[in-house]
Amino acid sequence: MNALFFTGNQSFELQSAVAAAPQPGEVQLRVAYCGVCGTDVHIYHGAMAHRLSLPQVIGHEVSAEIVHLGVDVTGWQVGDRVTVRPLNPGAEDPSDNGQRHIGKNLKFIGIDSPGGMQTHWNVPTHTLHRLPESLSLKLGALIEPLAVACHDVRLAELLLGEHAVVIGGGPIGMLIALVAKQKGANVLISEVNPARLALAQSLGLTAVNPSTADLVAQVDAFTAGAMADVVFEVSGVQAGVVAMTQVARARGRIVMVAIHAEPKPVDLFRFFWRELRLIGARVYEPEDFDEAIRLAASGELPLESLITQVAPLADAKTIFDTIDNNPAGMKYLLEC
Amino acid sequence: MNALFFTGNQSFELQSAVAAAPQPGEVQLRVAYCGVCGTDVHIYHGAMAHRLSLPQVIGHEVSAEIVHLGVDVTGWQVGDRVTVRPLNPGAEDPSDNGQRHIGKNLKFIGIDSPGGMQTHWNVPTHTLHRLPESLSLKLGALIEPLAVACHDVRLAELLLGEHAVVIGGGPIGMLIALVAKQKGANVLISEVNPARLALAQSLGLTAVNPSTADLVAQVDAFTAGAMADVVFEVSGVQAGVVAMTQVARARGRIVMVAIHAEPKPVDLFRFFWRELRLIGARVYEPEDFDEAIRLAASGELPLESLITQVAPLADAKTIFDTIDNNPAGMKYLLEC
Repeated sequence: MNALFFTGNQSFELQSAVAAAPQPGEVQLRVAYCGVCGTDVHIYHGAMAHRLSLPQVIGHEVSAEIVHLGVDVTGWQVGDRVTVRPLNPGAEDPSDNGQRHIGKNLKFIGIDSPGGMQTHWNVPTHTLHRLPESLSLKLGALIEPLAVACHDVRLAELLLGEHAVVIGGGPIGMLIALVAKQKGANVLISEVNPARLALAQSLGLTAVNPSTADLVAQVDAFTAGAMADVVFEVSGVQAGVVAMTQVARARGRIVMVAIHAEPKPVDLFRFFWRELRLIGARVYEPEDFDEAIRLAASGELPLESLITQVAPLADAKTIFDTIDNNPAGMKYLLEC
Repeated sequence: MNALFFTGNQSFELQSAVAAAPQPGEVQLRVAYCGVCGTDVHIYHGAMAHRLSLPQVIGHEVSAEIVHLGVDVTGWQVGDRVTVRPLNPGAEDPSDNGQRHIGKNLKFIGIDSPGGMQTHWNVPTHTLHRLPESLSLKLGALIEPLAVACHDVRLAELLLGEHAVVIGGGPIGMLIALVAKQKGANVLISEVNPARLALAQSLGLTAVNPSTADLVAQVDAFTAGAMADVVFEVSGVQAGVVAMTQVARARGRIVMVAIHAEPKPVDLFRFFWRELRLIGARVYEPEDFDEAIRLAASGELPLESLITQVAPLADAKTIFDTIDNNPAGMKYLLEC
């Protein structure tokens, strides 16, 4: 087998090794594709170093085929096509409130333990979701980020005909916009990058550049004065935090998708004055994977258009550097 | 009749006048008591000057008896004992989302138009709520702030047996704590003033001083590690904004009751990481007045203990200055 080891300092080493046998309760996967997540890029630049054990294989957006079953594994067969929900919940803490997917002792597979950028990968069966035959393995590698979008839209309790504003048109923002649109919402996406704006428009989304247009006025016009029922803050920047409270209508729901590493000034007065709601949303639950697979297999979403490039595992460094230099790109897949 | 005119610059003038007849759709009230709200104190210090027409009668926490009916008034009789929900919704804006109580064109009676610190007061019948005979007129003047608390607790969707933390033990915070406790929640109140802490304890509430104890550790112990299902931020200070995200459990609901005039740094990462919810809550809806009256009349809340002092209208300036100098005080009523 081959494994791509991240060795720190923006470097990878592709090494050949003997594949370890799956442990009881695990299966061995032959990985088809592994997508590159924004988190992987952060890791590439030195983030989350305390959670890694270098050299380490990273990656968690995977499509694969089962090639070996550990002992005691039932319900799965060699040849099954799957994707992986990369969460190991760990012991439940009383403050988790039963929310295992965001538990205090949660371990994220591909960060806290080896990931999918290798030809063979052993994972616990509780992480597996079956891919239907109608779904290509390329699109199978998009299920994980699509499940994030499904989780965000589900927590927003978005209704048919509602107006949604997505602030930030990267891969997750774009997927949220597409899922929200598929649910029957009227979606406007706010993004500063012209290439991403053009892509959003080509996908049938209303797209606004807040650096050249007045976003509040645009949302006002788009909604005939009603403003947004739901806002997704996916930008991670202060301008997004400012805009999120400005474009929401009374009792509007603002979903916090972005990772804001530091506390940022928030217009709490407007939360009070207009009875706004803020809803934190992180990763996914099993039903979000089920929904993502159903949506992807239905062919209702233009997911192929989001795949910018597919490259072999050996070209990983080139791909990571390309992502840095090409903010217009969407999803990059490594062929394993 | 006598009317207490606020003349600006921390001054009042008590003037006698001829009572105007109620307009169609209005009743004339003989005011029994008018409570002093924190907002009235802010006005006394010069806030909201652009919304007032000086000299102006202020005040909106009223118990009263109907003494005259305007033409076309049905459903009300002279002698009915009432309290007033001091909201004039105005024309509906599309962005109001049907929430008339916080509409863009809402006018607040007692700020945007004359208030209740006078012997006779004309108000529209849509503002009236009937007080049962079993409820004293003194307690009737507490219905308006109690309705705020009922609104906040209702929007929190507080459940029996849940843990609630109230940050800030002023009149509204104390009422929220009492209503939450009456709903079957386990309530801890955080307050820095020793006299307010002692009052909270005398009312059967668990009270913590966050300036002398570690609030997070106290909530951890109080909840056996589960942390708070619901947090009410009523302090209006940065320390409260910091604490609100620290003491909430996963998917905990944080109700924003306080008025934060300026944007403040908020730990948005923790909203994401623990999927916290923020719920803005302002004033009340008719059902909150109904619930407040029901609760007050039931005798289940120790409301008498919250009345610090009752004074005649002529002593208004003394009362306002007392409130400034006595942060331990709770509700002050003017006898009209």
